[in-house]
Amino acid sequence: MNRLSLNQITTKRWSVPEAVRGCADQGVEWIGLWRDKIAEVGAAETARLLAEHGVRASSVCRGGFFTGVTPEGAAVDGVGMTREAIDETATVGADVLVLVVGGIADGDLLSSRQRVADAVGELAPYARERGVRLALEPLHPMQCAERSVLSTLDQALEIAQEHPSDAVGVIVDEFHVWWDPRVEESIAKAAGRIAGFHVCDQQVPITDGLMARSLPGTGPIDHRRLRSCVEEAGYDGPVEVEVFDADLWQQPGDEVLRQVITAYEEHVIPR
Amino acid sequence: MNRLSLNQITTKRWSVPEAVRGCADQGVEWIGLWRDKIAEVGAAETARLLAEHGVRASSVCRGGFFTGVTPEGAAVDGVGMTREAIDETATVGADVLVLVVGGIADGDLLSSRQRVADAVGELAPYARERGVRLALEPLHPMQCAERSVLSTLDQALEIAQEHPSDAVGVIVDEFHVWWDPRVEESIAKAAGRIAGFHVCDQQVPITDGLMARSLPGTGPIDHRRLRSCVEEAGYDGPVEVEVFDADLWQQPGDEVLRQVITAYEEHVIPR
Repeated sequence: MNRLSLNQITTKRWSVPEAVRGCADQGVEWIGLWRDKIAEVGAAETARLLAEHGVRASSVCRGGFFTGVTPEGAAVDGVGMTREAIDETATVGADVLVLVVGGIADGDLLSSRQRVADAVGELAPYARERGVRLALEPLHPMQCAERSVLSTLDQALEIAQEHPSDAVGVIVDEFHVWWDPRVEESIAKAAGRIAGFHVCDQQVPITDGLMARSLPGTGPIDHRRLRSCVEEAGYDGPVEVEVFDADLWQQPGDEVLRQVITAYEEHVIPR
Repeated sequence: MNRLSLNQITTKRWSVPEAVRGCADQGVEWIGLWRDKIAEVGAAETARLLAEHGVRASSVCRGGFFTGVTPEGAAVDGVGMTREAIDETATVGADVLVLVVGGIADGDLLSSRQRVADAVGELAPYARERGVRLALEPLHPMQCAERSVLSTLDQALEIAQEHPSDAVGVIVDEFHVWWDPRVEESIAKAAGRIAGFHVCDQQVPITDGLMARSLPGTGPIDHRRLRSCVEEAGYDGPVEVEVFDADLWQQPGDEVLRQVITAYEEHVIPR
């Protein structure tokens, strides 16, 4: 139970103060924060709230978009935005900044991937000096075009391994990698690089590439198998439950968090 | 141009007689047939129509569902169904039967994959005796749960390589594999095993896992790069344009086929 972290997107209606207090009330010791929510109260106030309630930030989501284009097609300075995100991550006292690297720029998948590797090379020293670990999160292949040209754990590891392991790691997010025939092997290779483990389930069939998630135990993902792979690779940090689910988002945060705790206990942690 | 094949799903409103005649009218020498359409006129009549119009069947779609469950969750005898599909493929005079292997059975991804390997082993001699090549088609990871526990070309090749190359091959379908960071390497490894090359584009973002396709040139897929990989691997057979697109399906078949030819000429074949 004490490794459970509430990824804040799961309780989308909650502000940072509500979410931090909500976690403390239900004995959840970790929270994964989102920058748009931090912005509502400020990073310093977020740090104060965390300290006041004895809740720790497992990660901040997110930096990235290194290919220079948002999912909606607008131009973005991913490196500059990520420098700010690194500072903010340090201020709230989190060790990990999650990176969503961006989709295809200029219609060229291969050069877009190279831009990601270049940007990570540029930012890794900056992050390391501030005690923040950059965490490359491969996203599901259905999000390759517009959101992440990193689609597999192997691919994320290839970039991470160019840098010290305390500077660049990877996120293992079940939703994105569960289908991968190489997932067990890839997780084993990621030993020492795993900066986070995110759990949720997948809706079947997929009718919306972004929102097709659900609470652990409601879909095809074998959470115990993946969790034990991650643990065999030496990861013993927080486990974030991160669910994008329009139905869940309609419910009050404390009710959602209760369901998160139950799903985690019943489907993720060892029997 | 003479390698272009119309996959029949692209002109969903056309029956087999309409599609065969439509191809002949526009100088398209190949067609990829679907079993539900063949069933409307019978396999023998389909063979007669093909001969009459000088059109050849590049493939029959489909056998498979070896995990014993349909996408809708019903039980199915995949091996028995595929035996019938092999006979039908031989009758219409096609060399290739496309296999969609089926989704997760009994909540167990790993044993479901083993069922696929076992079924292919059981059917390969039967197919070979009838001059039909079984073609494993890895489907996009977003269809893993309910439709295909084979998600990558590497994975399909691993099963195919247990059998003679004229008995079991693979389909390279752009929609399913374009995002794969290993796709070039995998296609090279598939030399001698490529039983078909299917082209289309992907809608962005994906709002329906099954229907998110469009004509080549309208999305993120680099058709020339993938085509040249497939050709470097020695494949010189028909190129099927296979598009599931609700808008396209509303249009008359001959109009759709005109657009298919234009898209193929402008975006797939060498400049």
